[in-house]
Amino acid sequence: MTTFRSDTAILIQQFLATRLHSESLCHPLSAEDMGMQADAFVSPPKWHLAHTTWFFETFILSPLVSGYRVFHPRFEYLFNSYYNGVGEQFDRGKRGLLSRPNVDEVLKYREHVDTAMQAALQSPELFSEEDYATVCERCVLGIHHEKQHQELLLMDIRYMFFQNPLLPAYDDSHSLDASSNESASITDIRWLEVAGGLVDIGVRASDIGEGSADFYFDNESPQHSFFLNKYEIADRLVTNGEYLQFIQENGYDNPECWLADGWSHVNSEHWQHPLYWLYEKGEWYEFTLQGKQPLDLTAPVTNISGYEAAAYAHWAKARLPTEQEWENAARLYNGDGYDGNEALSNHDVSLSSSLVEDNTVALIQASDSAWQWTSSAYQPYPGYRPEAGAIGEYNGKFMSNQWVLRGGCHLTPNAHLRFSYRNFFYPDDRWITAGIRLARDVETARNVEVAQ
Amino acid sequence: MTTFRSDTAILIQQFLATRLHSESLCHPLSAEDMGMQADAFVSPPKWHLAHTTWFFETFILSPLVSGYRVFHPRFEYLFNSYYNGVGEQFDRGKRGLLSRPNVDEVLKYREHVDTAMQAALQSPELFSEEDYATVCERCVLGIHHEKQHQELLLMDIRYMFFQNPLLPAYDDSHSLDASSNESASITDIRWLEVAGGLVDIGVRASDIGEGSADFYFDNESPQHSFFLNKYEIADRLVTNGEYLQFIQENGYDNPECWLADGWSHVNSEHWQHPLYWLYEKGEWYEFTLQGKQPLDLTAPVTNISGYEAAAYAHWAKARLPTEQEWENAARLYNGDGYDGNEALSNHDVSLSSSLVEDNTVALIQASDSAWQWTSSAYQPYPGYRPEAGAIGEYNGKFMSNQWVLRGGCHLTPNAHLRFSYRNFFYPDDRWITAGIRLARDVETARNVEVAQ
Amino acid sequence: MTTFRSDTAILIQQFLATRLHSESLCHPLSAEDMGMQADAFVSPPKWHLAHTTWFFETFILSPLVSGYRVFHPRFEYLFNSYYNGVGEQFDRGKRGLLSRPNVDEVLKYREHVDTAMQAALQSPELFSEEDYATVCERCVLGIHHEKQHQELLLMDIRYMFFQNPLLPAYDDSHSLDASSNESASITDIRWLEVAGGLVDIGVRASDIGEGSADFYFDNESPQHSFFLNKYEIADRLVTNGEYLQFIQENGYDNPECWLADGWSHVNSEHWQHPLYWLYEKGEWYEFTLQGKQPLDLTAPVTNISGYEAAAYAHWAKARLPTEQEWENAARLYNGDGYDGNEALSNHDVSLSSSLVEDNTVALIQASDSAWQWTSSAYQPYPGYRPEAGAIGEYNGKFMSNQWVLRGGCHLTPNAHLRFSYRNFFYPDDRWITAGIRLARDVETARNVEVAQ
Amino acid sequence: MTTFRSDTAILIQQFLATRLHSESLCHPLSAEDMGMQADAFVSPPKWHLAHTTWFFETFILSPLVSGYRVFHPRFEYLFNSYYNGVGEQFDRGKRGLLSRPNVDEVLKYREHVDTAMQAALQSPELFSEEDYATVCERCVLGIHHEKQHQELLLMDIRYMFFQNPLLPAYDDSHSLDASSNESASITDIRWLEVAGGLVDIGVRASDIGEGSADFYFDNESPQHSFFLNKYEIADRLVTNGEYLQFIQENGYDNPECWLADGWSHVNSEHWQHPLYWLYEKGEWYEFTLQGKQPLDLTAPVTNISGYEAAAYAHWAKARLPTEQEWENAARLYNGDGYDGNEALSNHDVSLSSSLVEDNTVALIQASDSAWQWTSSAYQPYPGYRPEAGAIGEYNGKFMSNQWVLRGGCHLTPNAHLRFSYRNFFYPDDRWITAGIRLARDVETARNVEVAQ
Repeated sequence: MTTFRSDTAILIQQFLATRLHSESLCHPLSAEDMGMQADAFVSPPKWHLAHTTWFFETFILSPLVSGYRVFHPRFEYLFNSYYNGVGEQFDRGKRGLLSRPNVDEVLKYREHVDTAMQAALQSPELFSEEDYATVCERCVLGIHHEKQHQELLLMDIRYMFFQNPLLPAYDDSHSLDASSNESASITDIRWLEVAGGLVDIGVRASDIGEGSADFYFDNESPQHSFFLNKYEIADRLVTNGEYLQFIQENGYDNPECWLADGWSHVNSEHWQHPLYWLYEKGEWYEFTLQGKQPLDLTAPVTNISGYEAAAYAHWAKARLPTEQEWENAARLYNGDGYDGNEALSNHDVSLSSSLVEDNTVALIQASDSAWQWTSSAYQPYPGYRPEAGAIGEYNGKFMSNQWVLRGGCHLTPNAHLRFSYRNFFYPDDRWITAGIRLARDVETARNVEVAQ
Repeated sequence: MTTFRSDTAILIQQFLATRLHSESLCHPLSAEDMGMQADAFVSPPKWHLAHTTWFFETFILSPLVSGYRVFHPRFEYLFNSYYNGVGEQFDRGKRGLLSRPNVDEVLKYREHVDTAMQAALQSPELFSEEDYATVCERCVLGIHHEKQHQELLLMDIRYMFFQNPLLPAYDDSHSLDASSNESASITDIRWLEVAGGLVDIGVRASDIGEGSADFYFDNESPQHSFFLNKYEIADRLVTNGEYLQFIQENGYDNPECWLADGWSHVNSEHWQHPLYWLYEKGEWYEFTLQGKQPLDLTAPVTNISGYEAAAYAHWAKARLPTEQEWENAARLYNGDGYDGNEALSNHDVSLSSSLVEDNTVALIQASDSAWQWTSSAYQPYPGYRPEAGAIGEYNGKFMSNQWVLRGGCHLTPNAHLRFSYRNFFYPDDRWITAGIRLARDVETARNVEVAQ
Repeated sequence: MTTFRSDTAILIQQFLATRLHSESLCHPLSAEDMGMQADAFVSPPKWHLAHTTWFFETFILSPLVSGYRVFHPRFEYLFNSYYNGVGEQFDRGKRGLLSRPNVDEVLKYREHVDTAMQAALQSPELFSEEDYATVCERCVLGIHHEKQHQELLLMDIRYMFFQNPLLPAYDDSHSLDASSNESASITDIRWLEVAGGLVDIGVRASDIGEGSADFYFDNESPQHSFFLNKYEIADRLVTNGEYLQFIQENGYDNPECWLADGWSHVNSEHWQHPLYWLYEKGEWYEFTLQGKQPLDLTAPVTNISGYEAAAYAHWAKARLPTEQEWENAARLYNGDGYDGNEALSNHDVSLSSSLVEDNTVALIQASDSAWQWTSSAYQPYPGYRPEAGAIGEYNGKFMSNQWVLRGGCHLTPNAHLRFSYRNFFYPDDRWITAGIRLARDVETARNVEVAQ
Repeated sequence: MTTFRSDTAILIQQFLATRLHSESLCHPLSAEDMGMQADAFVSPPKWHLAHTTWFFETFILSPLVSGYRVFHPRFEYLFNSYYNGVGEQFDRGKRGLLSRPNVDEVLKYREHVDTAMQAALQSPELFSEEDYATVCERCVLGIHHEKQHQELLLMDIRYMFFQNPLLPAYDDSHSLDASSNESASITDIRWLEVAGGLVDIGVRASDIGEGSADFYFDNESPQHSFFLNKYEIADRLVTNGEYLQFIQENGYDNPECWLADGWSHVNSEHWQHPLYWLYEKGEWYEFTLQGKQPLDLTAPVTNISGYEAAAYAHWAKARLPTEQEWENAARLYNGDGYDGNEALSNHDVSLSSSLVEDNTVALIQASDSAWQWTSSAYQPYPGYRPEAGAIGEYNGKFMSNQWVLRGGCHLTPNAHLRFSYRNFFYPDDRWITAGIRLARDVETARNVEVAQ
């Protein structure tokens, strides 16, 4: 899962920085916030802090470090997310009932594990060469696992606060000023033509960098050939303003736009607009981590399900790209790839306020953008094989019924911004920061243009 | 609902003592505990603190105190339990999602309302005579409303902690020593014969005392005639040991013992023993507010549903008493009634450890006992009429599908221990501290004795 | 359960007439109608025919008739409704999946059992005296059991046809002519005052007649004393026209009228009018066994839940009577009781079209009226004890969560029209032909009159 | 959707033969069978007969035939399956409640439409050239639509009869003799190696034949290039005997074998074996259209979900093929394709009793075999575009969350046996006759062989 060979000092530094960052994300939260679970698909912030710790304890300290004493014998059960190979798990939908351990105890648990991890990393002499390599490899995996949870943590907090009629702000340091964008002119979507043919898909050397960034998840591999027809892809994401037009032209009432399963959701869950949009006294707002804000019509639409993304695309006489089309176009139009090596401390959790990039053909809009639903079902790449044992449950067993998303959003850790990264969610998931990039067949494109 | 005429100083003292007691019950809790809701039928401790405050603000301060400013405009909505006359209510099942307001804000809310209430009570000159009487009457009602919530608070805490595999103790000041009871001999149930005939049922002057105890809920009135056949009633409650025999003789597998609706619950919810019983390595335990404890076989069985109470009674060749039988017997065998005027500070929240009373014919086992399921459906007494307006929703609208319980348990405030008090829950509710007192027809009793 | 001593010839005649009548009720039905089940609380017509046959086979032929061979070994399981004492039951909600046995086989099953029953009844010499008495007693019970199912059958057919957008008519021999009633003037409700005091409630000799009518269900006994306050009761049922006024004055939108559990149903099931009412192009219709008909405003309102009955009563500044008030008033104002001995063949299944009776103070409007919701929970009378064994499951185990209805409707077999008959349904049941008779406290009555 | 050019006489003949065949499939059914619906995902036989008729009326007769009078105005609503473009649909889960129209009326409906269809087909002079071409094209589509329903009809009947404890046989003309197969030796699976590379996928001229067989569904097109790694595929399906070994080695208890969503189903629905297997007194049976039969260990396992197929493959150290691998291998190893042009009357609905084919490398086991789950999500082929209007809802809107199955089973009409046919179901569907063909990566294959 990693080709890791790294300097221990750098690894320790990255480990500690990641661990610290998770805790710093919780600073604006009260103890009650830390324990709250709004639905079965989200987790309490405290649980994220404990589970990421559990990962290091379960896969490194307990099996590999001689003499390690677990912090609490029941935590293996309480903070196991879904690893059947480790054992039974506490009911996912009831994580909000774990008022104990309280925040202080969870922070002590983190400290206990961090201390033991540092000691282990600093003492290769206590391990066989193979075991020490495993310790380091799994440490890198644990770091990236925790980074994924940092992003989830912020998406979960937004969702949880949205349930509260008081609409609390996670970050009230500033209000977004959408008015400054009102005059901003959004250029029409430009269609970038891609030749296709037999292309290479999947992680390659240039996707990964130095140190802990020298990492990828197993689901990004192996690299393989894939044949693509000629296609066109949009140079930017669909905006709130464009999506509003879909709503105003009755997109949510027109079954013709929708996949059958999507139409069922529209009706059973009464979807009428993106998850966080609010309509009050003739004005549209969006609930953000900064609280309720006027809807920014020039920002990319987000927090829509895959079904909504597909319905919008149908309405716009286009379609969603496949994940292969997305990756291929991204490699072609973005030169040297993401700036994934920025310092962690620079990460900005503010909501996107702008679509415009210096790089005017930025296919992947980095830190102020959105994950992009593809039309591809999440399935293994040809030749993919998960690792043996519980750690093999990380990715492989989820390869059914979910859709692939590509790109990244303003909450995504920089280290996860790369061409080959495959995110995946169920097509009815809406609490994730996901939006729409359109694609179309070349022939279709022509016909549509003629028809207009 | 009250015949209240009282000295203002006493009323203020009782108001403050009640308010203080609610907060003191929360001292052992962490902030996360305060926000936790384990199921729709229980509420977070923090919510209890806020809702009881809401009651004073909504029914006294806002409508009657000129110039009163509400603490927060949304609290009317957030902390309304079920008063449709007041307006919409925040979804009962989602109270656990209100991480905000946090505990500190709720305590400030309490302080704000307490200050305003004191000022109002001390200033009769600011009101018309009728309005001031209403202020005082509703203050008494609010005090007793809060006392009911104090009992619910403790039952809810026990239920919530039970969801946590760590089985936390609310009160870890001492462990119960069930072993000391092992040698305790429980005398067989003695059957007290009651003549019946045309008796008076419902609240009367001797049930209520001085000061704020000069109070009863409207559902206890009006007093009325009721005809009873001759019957027998047990002199004590059914013990855990006796109930264990019912389990061991397959009571939970024998449909003959059960009401049809009860049998449905046994099967759909897999009831096999009282809610808080645990069976581990051949030993029975009970989860209590002091954590997991060995099951005390001499203590009264509690935390069973009404269906289980009725099934046990059937198995024991007896039945549950009607509420009229219970009240009539209680008045006959308990002389001057409950000792309901003890100081609040003396209230003991420890779990019952003993059935034996000095008063050997104590029909109502006071501070260390259990609510007692009757066979009576909760319905209005003849001539009952609820008050007009939202405050009339207090009792009247619940008079369907619930069963009456009589007596009181070790968590019940002393001021609610009286012969005429009518508690009520759904027959499948199990998180309440309710047990079994048996009754039987006189003729039946004879036959059974002959048959043995 | 019966004081049966009868002439065998009469019993056989009644048995055969009852059996024949069940089949004749199915004549208008197609084979597909016979197998259809619209919801778990109703049964397919074919199932009613088989289950009533099962009753005779299970409780008489199999246990008491030497050498009897069951028609099919699996029918004991398939057609057991709820007798746990007999064994497991086929899932109630899946009776509509039993396309086999088909109608012809069920009719053969009936013939097989009828032949065996006749043979048994005609051959007392083959039994001990006690066994023959049991055969006869259970035969009478089986006859009355089948009569109850005849009524259910017709209510179930109406409910089933209502699910079909084609709105088929069970009986299309004639259309109801509501227009003839339009000019009919309905006199205002007159309030009959009843003195109350200590009265006798429950079945007595005058309630039961000769032959098989010499019968009552065990839940009607034993007779016992009951104390009633003075009260008033309406001389007729509430009409569709009166109920329409409740709707038009927003009764379904006003929580103040409703019991809390009723209000939940109004909101979750979107009740806005009685079950069978239809509103089309500005006109009200009612779906009946004769198909869709204009709503007769002078007929009694029916097919409302107990919650709706109670809400209407609250809105009308009255209440529902208790079952004791109902029975006591019925005995006082109806002289010699129901005309329950009419020939079965005279029974009229047409929908009620008139409220007016020759007997102008008819408290119980017999063949063209409705069951009347009382406010009483269905509970055992003092001293009630069910029979031992499976046959004791007939009534006793249902004595929780249901409400008592009194009277009878146009679908009720004459033999079940008596003062002491206790019908019972859940308060949210609406497919039964049940309506409203109002009562009120005497004092309340005065006040309301003054207020108007 | 079709490249139809055909002689009218042949078309009429095929139309009538297809229509007749649907009715003949219902001959063994009683009227009650015809109306029964066992679950929302199956339909009553009568409904299949009506809906296939509705298709011709709705898409041909009503829009294109001047002066056509619909048989019944409400049938458009009652028998619309899922075409939002046509209008509202009667609730899918309630089709079993439509006892009316009865079977006779549905047969009259069929006759009415058949007559009008024949008249239309025979009278090109009454249409414009374009309209007549549409009539013919849609007639071909309607024929193949009905053929799909013929297969569903038989699968639905089996599922419905399985709900009945009497386990009725649809076809009791003969019992299967599994014992004759007991001595049959099943050769070990042989792995056929396929070179892969850039291959053509999708329908081509050789897949379709003469007359109405000159047809394919739009989801099979367009033909396109696809790159395949080298792979191996099994020469036959997995047998009941092999699957039994998976069960006996605790496959259903081992989460390691399962996709996460599959494991959820195993636990929530308590899957322990294929849908129709029965274990009684130490022996395995299978419920078939011929009733309960001894399990034939040499027959292909069927009626498993896609999750079970994938779990078995994991356990067998293999995987499911992708749909492209399946199609490519089928074309390579089966020469001239299916024998899809046999007369309809030869179609055999008996359950498969043998795996052995004359053609020993038959990749697609035709008339006595099973649909084969692939690992491919059902998604549009590159360049796929559905037709405009309601008829475009046929395939396109289902392209999410389902899996592709390839091949065909003994119930599949011959005209649907072709290399390019794409069947699709949800991965938890089990009532379809679907089994397992294994595939594996070439490298994996080697490793496994070495490991053994």
